[in-house]
Amino acid sequence: MTPRLLLRYGDEIERGLRDALTGESLLYRALRYHVGLEDEHGAPCRMLGKLLRPSLVLFTAGELGADLVRARFAAVGLELIHNFSLIHDDIQDRDALRRGRQSVWRLHGVEQAINAGDLMETLAVGQTLRAGAESLQALLQATVEMIEGQAMDLAFEKEEATRDAYFAMVDKKTGALIRCALELGGILGGADRTVIGHLTGLGGALGRAFQIRDDLLGIWGNGEETGKPLGSDIRRRKKSFPAALLFDRAPQAQRNTVRAIYAKPRIDEADVVRVIELMDRLEIREAGEDAVAAALDRASSHLDRLPFSRDGKEEMSELIDYLARRKK
Amino acid sequence: MTPRLLLRYGDEIERGLRDALTGESLLYRALRYHVGLEDEHGAPCRMLGKLLRPSLVLFTAGELGADLVRARFAAVGLELIHNFSLIHDDIQDRDALRRGRQSVWRLHGVEQAINAGDLMETLAVGQTLRAGAESLQALLQATVEMIEGQAMDLAFEKEEATRDAYFAMVDKKTGALIRCALELGGILGGADRTVIGHLTGLGGALGRAFQIRDDLLGIWGNGEETGKPLGSDIRRRKKSFPAALLFDRAPQAQRNTVRAIYAKPRIDEADVVRVIELMDRLEIREAGEDAVAAALDRASSHLDRLPFSRDGKEEMSELIDYLARRKK
Repeated sequence: MTPRLLLRYGDEIERGLRDALTGESLLYRALRYHVGLEDEHGAPCRMLGKLLRPSLVLFTAGELGADLVRARFAAVGLELIHNFSLIHDDIQDRDALRRGRQSVWRLHGVEQAINAGDLMETLAVGQTLRAGAESLQALLQATVEMIEGQAMDLAFEKEEATRDAYFAMVDKKTGALIRCALELGGILGGADRTVIGHLTGLGGALGRAFQIRDDLLGIWGNGEETGKPLGSDIRRRKKSFPAALLFDRAPQAQRNTVRAIYAKPRIDEADVVRVIELMDRLEIREAGEDAVAAALDRASSHLDRLPFSRDGKEEMSELIDYLARRKK
Repeated sequence: MTPRLLLRYGDEIERGLRDALTGESLLYRALRYHVGLEDEHGAPCRMLGKLLRPSLVLFTAGELGADLVRARFAAVGLELIHNFSLIHDDIQDRDALRRGRQSVWRLHGVEQAINAGDLMETLAVGQTLRAGAESLQALLQATVEMIEGQAMDLAFEKEEATRDAYFAMVDKKTGALIRCALELGGILGGADRTVIGHLTGLGGALGRAFQIRDDLLGIWGNGEETGKPLGSDIRRRKKSFPAALLFDRAPQAQRNTVRAIYAKPRIDEADVVRVIELMDRLEIREAGEDAVAAALDRASSHLDRLPFSRDGKEEMSELIDYLARRKK
C-alpha cells in the first residue's frame, strides 16, 4: 500500500544518515537512536519513519537530472533538520513517545535533548553545505519558517486558533520543509523559476494535506494502526485543524463548553466524548477531508505542469493518492 | 581599562547584529532582547556584552588583510552562535539572569526559548555562509565541539570532574568558539597552515585563560563588579576549575565532605564558607592564577610567531594582559 516513492530511496537515505551521524559520544548515540538507526542500547536497527522529505528530494532531483551525490547530501540534510525539530518539539510538547519509542528527552533528560537537537541542526547544515550554497540557503530559509511555525503553534496554546491562523501556522511548521524538499530537487536540477514555482506549489499542497490528515488521525485515527487512541489530540489539548474549525463553527454556548474543557487541568474520557460529539455534529471531519482533497487537487494541477517523466508523474500521483487515504 | 581590541569594533558589530536580527515576530524580538539591542519592552538599547569573539575575528581579519565585508558576516555569525548557545545554556542551568537581565526563558518560557535559540543558530549559519563555504565549515566544526563541551559539562553534574576532564571540557565548551574566531580571521585573510596553527594555538590559550578566570571570579569575584556574591558557583553546584581541582587535591575525608555538600538539596552559607576554606587551604585560587598565567604565556608565544603588525601585536598583548587581570 505504501507508494513506491516512499520505498525506493530507503537504503540510500539510511546510508546517508549513518555517514552523517558517525560519532562516539553520548549525543551522537542519542541522534542515531532518535532517527531509528539504533535501539536504546546502541544496537543497530532500522526504524526510520516515512522518510517523506528526503525521498521527495531524491525523486525530484532524479526527475530533473540533478547530480545525485549532491542530492543525497541535501536529502540527508533536510531529514536531519526535520529530526532536530522533532527532538526539540517533543521537549516542548512533553511527548514521552516518538514513533512508539521513548523520546530523546525521556531517555537522556531535557538538558541533553536540547544539546542533541542543537547538534543535529549543526550536522544538518554541514551535510547540506556539501550540496552547495544555493541549496543551503533554501534550507535555511525553510528552517527559519519552520521554527516560526513552531512558535505560532505554541502561542496557540494560549489563544484560540481560527481556521486561517491554523493554515498560516501549518504552512510554516509542516509546509516549509516539504516545500523545501521539492525546491532542493529543483535547485540541484537547475530548474528555472517557473518550474521552481510549481515545485514549491506542489510541496506546499502536499504539506498541507499531510498535516490535516495527521490532525484527523489524531482524533479519529484507529488506535491499532496509529498508536493513538480515539481523541488523543483532544486529551493533549492540541490545537489542530479539527479544534481550530470547532472554535470557528461552534455557536457561542458550545464554544464556551469547549473552551472550558480545554482549560481543565485534566481532560477525562467524558470530556473527550463530548468534544468529539460536537465535532461530529458540526461535520468537522468531513470538512477536514474536504480540505485534504482541495490541497491534493492543487498538488495535482502543479504536478501536471512539471517537466517530469510519465513514470515520474505516475509515482507522484500514487503519493498524492496515498496522502488522501493514509490511515497512519 | 578595557583593551582597545574590545572597544574598536563595537559599532560595526552592533550594525551587523541589527541587520541579522531584523524581523517582527516574537522570536526576533526575543533575539534582539537577548543580545542586548532591545530592552524587554522592545525599546532600542545597547547592552551588548564584551563582544570578544567577533572583535577577534575583525581584528585578525584586519591584520591579515582580509575582505572586511566578508569578515563582518563571519564575525556576526560567530557572535550569534555564541548567543544561541547562551540562550539554551540558561535553560539547561536554570539561570534566571544573564548579564544582569532576565534570561530569555524567564521572559518567554522554556518552550519559546528553545525556539529562539534554534532560530539564532539558523540565522548565524546564514550570516556565515555569506562569508564563504570555508568559513562556514570552520564555524560548524567549532559549533559541534562547543555542543559536545556543553554535553560534557552537564555530565559533570552527575560525576566528579578531574582537572584533566575539566580542561577537555572547557577547551571544547569555551575554547572552540574563541579558537574559531582567530581561525576565521585567518581563513578570510588567506593564511597558510602554519599561521592558522598559531592562530588556533593563540585562540585556544585565550579561551582557556578566559574560562579559568571566569571560574575564579565565580567563587572569589567581587560581587559589586561581577554581580555574583562570594562563592556563587558553589551555591550553584557548578563543576568549575576550582571544584575540579578541589576533588583532585583533597584528601579522602575532605573529598567526602565536599561530595556530601554538593549532593545536598540546598547548599547554605555555612556550606559555602566550608568549601571556600578548604579551597583556600589547598591553594586552589593560586593554582587557578598559575593556570591562567601558563595559558597566557602560551598565547604570547603563539602571538610572537604571527605575521601581525607591530601595533597589532601590541593590541593583542593588551588583551592578554587584560585577561590575566580582569575582575568582571
